[in-house]
This record gives sequence, C-alpha cells and structure tokens, in this order.
Amino acid sequence: MMKMIDGGVCAAKGFRASGIHCGLRRSASVKDLALVASDVPASAAAVYTQNLVKGAPLLVTRRNLANGTAQAIVCNSGNANTCNANGEQVAAQMCALASKALGIAPDAVIVASTGVIGQPLPIEPISQGMPLLAAQLSRSGSEAAAQAIMTTDTVKKEAAVAFTLGGKPCHIGGIAKGSGMIHPNMATMLCFITTDAAISPALLQKALSADVQDTFNMISVDGDTSTNDMVAVLANGLAQNPMIENEGADYQALCAALRQVMQALCIAIAKDGEGATKLLSCHVSGAPDVETARKTAKSVVCSSLFKAAMFGSDANWGRVLCAIGYAGVPIDIQKVGVAFSSQAGSITVCQKGAGVPFSEEEAGRILSQPEIGIDILLDQGAAQATAWGCDLSYDYVKINGDYRS
Amino acid sequence: MMKMIDGGVCAAKGFRASGIHCGLRRSASVKDLALVASDVPASAAAVYTQNLVKGAPLLVTRRNLANGTAQAIVCNSGNANTCNANGEQVAAQMCALASKALGIAPDAVIVASTGVIGQPLPIEPISQGMPLLAAQLSRSGSEAAAQAIMTTDTVKKEAAVAFTLGGKPCHIGGIAKGSGMIHPNMATMLCFITTDAAISPALLQKALSADVQDTFNMISVDGDTSTNDMVAVLANGLAQNPMIENEGADYQALCAALRQVMQALCIAIAKDGEGATKLLSCHVSGAPDVETARKTAKSVVCSSLFKAAMFGSDANWGRVLCAIGYAGVPIDIQKVGVAFSSQAGSITVCQKGAGVPFSEEEAGRILSQPEIGIDILLDQGAAQATAWGCDLSYDYVKINGDYRS
Repeated sequence: MMKMIDGGVCAAKGFRASGIHCGLRRSASVKDLALVASDVPASAAAVYTQNLVKGAPLLVTRRNLANGTAQAIVCNSGNANTCNANGEQVAAQMCALASKALGIAPDAVIVASTGVIGQPLPIEPISQGMPLLAAQLSRSGSEAAAQAIMTTDTVKKEAAVAFTLGGKPCHIGGIAKGSGMIHPNMATMLCFITTDAAISPALLQKALSADVQDTFNMISVDGDTSTNDMVAVLANGLAQNPMIENEGADYQALCAALRQVMQALCIAIAKDGEGATKLLSCHVSGAPDVETARKTAKSVVCSSLFKAAMFGSDANWGRVLCAIGYAGVPIDIQKVGVAFSSQAGSITVCQKGAGVPFSEEEAGRILSQPEIGIDILLDQGAAQATAWGCDLSYDYVKINGDYRS
Repeated sequence: MMKMIDGGVCAAKGFRASGIHCGLRRSASVKDLALVASDVPASAAAVYTQNLVKGAPLLVTRRNLANGTAQAIVCNSGNANTCNANGEQVAAQMCALASKALGIAPDAVIVASTGVIGQPLPIEPISQGMPLLAAQLSRSGSEAAAQAIMTTDTVKKEAAVAFTLGGKPCHIGGIAKGSGMIHPNMATMLCFITTDAAISPALLQKALSADVQDTFNMISVDGDTSTNDMVAVLANGLAQNPMIENEGADYQALCAALRQVMQALCIAIAKDGEGATKLLSCHVSGAPDVETARKTAKSVVCSSLFKAAMFGSDANWGRVLCAIGYAGVPIDIQKVGVAFSSQAGSITVCQKGAGVPFSEEEAGRILSQPEIGIDILLDQGAAQATAWGCDLSYDYVKINGDYRS
C-alpha cells in the first residue's frame, strides 16, 4: 500500500537537508542556497533539459553522475549560472565546497542553479554560506531546502510517499521549484527526489526517464523550455529492501511510488505557474496512441488564447478545437468531443467536432473554480494522457515584464 | 521602379470594394461584411491554414478555386463559421448571394469568415445586407472593406504598390486582418490581394506560395495557428501586360511587388497584435541555411517570456538565448551574438554565447521605443531570415479573457 506522507526530500531514511540565505538574492529573508545529503553513497539518476543552451551546472552534474552514484545535492536560486564564460568553473567550485563541507568526493555532488540567465554567479556568498548550510542539515530540513530553490514560486513544493518493497517499509519524496519558463522537453524543471530504496543506478535511470514522459514532460506554464531543467533522484538503500536489479514487481512498485511523488510535484508546479489563478488539467482519451494523446493534451494547455479564456472563465471551446487542430497529430476532428469540469460540475460543449447548446451561466460557474478539467474524447482509439497547465493572467505579464530587477 | 501607393485592394485597375454593417456584430457602427469584385474574371490563387480544423469557408473556397479563376471575394467578421454542423452550407449560401448580386457564377466567389469559432453563422443578415453591399462597390471602397474584416484589430491594414511589366503600368494591393490567433503555418491570416497584372493561375499560385514563406509564415502574435487563415490573390490582367507564363523577368518583378505588399501587411498585423505596444523584428543572420534562420527568428518572437520582457523594456537577453536553444535547430550556441536596436540606437548584449557588459540605462532607452529590432548573429553560415511579432501585455490577457462577450 502506498500513502502520501510528510517529510519531502527528507522523508526517506538517511537524508538530511537545509536551506539558508547566503546573499545571492537581495532580501535577507529569502533563502537562496539549498543542500541535500545522504548519510551513505546512493544510486543516482537524472534527466536534463533538451534546450541546446544548457546551464553550466547541468554539464558538471552530468559528468559527476557518469559513475551512477552521488551523495549530495547543492542548489542555489537567484542566478541560473547559464551563458556565463566561467560557468562550469563556478559550478565545479560549488561541488568542491559541498564536498569539503560534507567530507565526500567532489564528483559525489549534484549541482544546480536557477534564476536569471547570463549574469556571472559570484562564488563568494556560496563559499561563505557553505559551513552554515552544512551545519544546519537536518532530518526536518526539507522545507528550508524547498524554500531555498524557489524563484518566482509562490509556494514551496514537497511531496512524499510511503510504500513497501520485499516487506521493507520504503519512502520516496522530493522537492521541486518552477513557476515560469516551464515547458519541459524530455526533461523537467528542478526537482530533487530521494528514496531509501535499494536499486541499481541503471534501473533508477530507467524508472526516472520513463516517468518524466507522463509527468514533467506533460506540464507547461508558458511554452518556454528552460535552460536549467533537471530532475535528479538519489536512492541510498537504507530501507534494506533486496536490491532492485530487474524489472519485476519491486521495480514496478518503486515506479508507482515515484510516479505519485513526481505527479504531485508536477501539479504543484503547474498550479503555481507565474501569475496563475487556475490549474488546468487536460485529459485526452480515445486516442489512437499515447503520443497522439500527449501531444493533443499538451497543445491545449499551451494555447495562450485558451489560457486567457480560462482566466476569464469563458467557455470558449473553439480555442480547444483550434489547439487540437494545430497539435500536429493526424486525427479526425469530426469525432471530437469536449467537456469542461470542476468541483462545481461538468458540462459538455462540443460533440462530433461541432458545438452543442449549453448554459453559459452554468459553464461560467464551473470555470470560476480554481481547478479546471478539460476532458477531450477523441473517439478514435483507446490511448489516453493528461497534461497540466495554468491560465494566463495579467500577473504573468507583470512578473515577466521586469523579471531581472 | 516600384513605389508604395494608396488604394489598397482597389489600387489595381478594374477592382471595386465595399464594406457595410449587416448585423453580425452588435454595434451598428461596426462594419461586418466586405465585398471585393473584379470587372472581369481573374486568375486566382490562395493558401490556407494548415490547422486540421479548417473553417467551412476555406473548404468552399478551395473547391471554387479548383479552376484557377475567380471574380469576387465576400468576407464577414464577427463569426468564423467554423466547427458548425451547417458551416459549408452557409458558406456556399454566401457565395450564391454574392454571385446573384454580381451576376457571376457561384464558383467565381472566394468566401471567408473571421470571428468566434463554434457559433452557428446566421445567413439572414448577410442575405439582407448583400444588395446594399453590392450597390456600394466602388473604386474607393478598399478602406470600407478593410474595416469590415477587422475583429480585435485596432487599425485597418491596406498596402499597395505600383510597378511595370513589359512597359505597362501595373498595380498590386491588398487588405488584411489579424490581431490574435496569429501563428501562421504554411499559410496566413486573412489577406486579400488584387493586381491588374496578367499572369497564369499556376504561376500566380507559385508566386504566392513562395512568398508566404518569408512573410505571413514569419509572423506570430500568440503562437495560436488560426482555423481560418487564408491569403487569396486575384489577377485580372487589365494592365494589359504580356501574360506572365514563365518565371522570367516579369514574373520576378511581380514577385517583388507581391513581396512588398505582403510584407507591409504582415508587419501591420504583427504591430497590431492583440494588446501589443511594440513591434518586434527579429533578424537572424550567419545561419547555415534559411530554414535554420527562419526557425531561430520565429522561436524568439514566439517566446512568451521574451515578449513580456519587451513589454517591460527589460534587456533580458538570456531569454533570447533560451528561445534559440529550444528552436530545434542544430547550431553552435558558443558562437551566437545578440544586439537590440531601435530608432534610439543599438546595443550589443551577448557575444559568443555569453553576456557582455552593457549599460542597462541605454538598453532601457532603446527598448522603450515602439519598434524593436533583435539582431542575432549566428556566425556559422550566410543565410538569414526575419520574423515579426509583438510584445505580450496586460491587454492581451484582457482582450482574450472574455473574447466572446
């Protein structure tokens, strides 16, 4: 049995975390440096942005994870350390500082940065803050770490699940950040997951790579794929379950737990999209194949026009069909049905590709809720997928009109 | 020699136009029905949206243009006649009404509609308005027709050019509409072009199809490809130039004139993007091939984050590199340079993929102008392209939060 629990990135045995203000961000009350550490070396896996422009920390992390193990994660906010001439050097220095403070090898450190692109990242605040950051590591430090990786996020994102493997109680949990520049492509926003399950690095990577297809790759806030996207997972084996080395029942159980945590963090990111007032969940069913379902769902949650309509609680379903039409999938539009739903009810607005009479008043009531479902029935197969996004509001423009100041 | 002239869609000999309020839109002061007619049958060509969802008028127009000739264009605003069960029937009725009023064959009529998707289009207002519409056809009717096809447009779009073919004075001009749902894909927004040049239908189609690659396919307001995009051209031959039947000098001259008109209308559409306060022209040079240059330029003008930064006059060039990085082109980011320009000057902000020191004050002054250039040097080839777009403002959200009411 699987159940959601507290504890975030420290829910699993042997993981501690911390977050402090080191001086990268202006306000002294805003944390900007996070550390996550395992008591013992852990299997490690990660996926990265497919943006050609990659943050320097990703390049360093990829090198460090070549051996499939890691023991700590260091991450700053306020500066993405991307498009800087000395970026890789600074990212390597961050690893060295964490390594020294924790007494582990430099290549056992995963490094990440998030914030403004193209401004040199000063190492001094990180260097000066590292002793305190390491000293504050604790079993209850997930919240501080989750706060320290936030940028324009308005809420911290944590999730964790308890499950069992071979009779052993296991835990998996994580923290994530993300609010804008969110349109993952075969990768994700920043997300750090830890588990005490024992699993080989190869299978951990396989589980992660498969999962992001249905979780982080299915969210979008603004259509902009970040340069610094990364999801990393550490599995330290302290649950003492039999090491997972094949794709049997234990692997499936771990994947299910991983899915639960990743999906919860994804939804939290979409819901906290920059300026968002509503979470949009677009569920596509009746598709000829999963890829068609995914592309269709994602096209709808990415449409600026549809997102603006949702901000205005306007049941402008023509924009849903328009977005399906340019999704690049070979479907028969004449079969498509569309319904909107929320906790206030459900209403069908389109059947067989054409409008059906509906009560605008009822639609407005349904769409005024904070969580909106867009249910699309393609009626030409059995595959399905869900994508998550948010509405487009004045505040998105406000936040991004002058992000750097 | 080519020069810009007045007259829009009536600049060419033998074309008349009109525009009236027939009752499809609420305000009696807003025109909603346009007619363009040639005194004689004309060679005709068109390109259409690649959205799988196609407005019913496009399907009818495509059938009517199968013989390569047409003599009139009828277009309404306020309702897209798309995703309606009886859409094709109503579009055909519009053709029949225009045909009867003008005494021409029903299949000599190009029909188009623009406005809300998915609401049945009543034929009665069009039927009742057609006699007046036909009676008001005049050589000075371009402005009225341009107004009658507007939706959220804030300004009418007309352009025309005088040129010569075989010593004969020729004219080409057109009208266009478009403000939102603009992200043409191998097609365009609504645009109607007329010329008195004599040219075969096949070559007219070839000229048009080639031209949209560098004009209408290079603009974006919001990333949403409309269901009703169409550019149609009528060439009635009244200039009495030798019929253009091969790709010689006369064809090239006509293409140059067509380019001038189409580009002017494109820029007018981008500049009048929903909520726009600034025109963005992104010029990419030094690309290995034209397709790479086009994709790169378009990716930048499509980035919501970059568009919001431009609204705020914020020189956030990291977002330019981010958008280049996800453009899906195989380029070397380490060679890329970026500069911003306007009538207030020019400023280099990135060289060889990394930031260079620049005056934020000067950048802010440059970016506060109404027309902004984003000049990207890829430094890895000789190909170039330009894309046009606009900033993302509060008003885009306002306009689209409740478009249907």
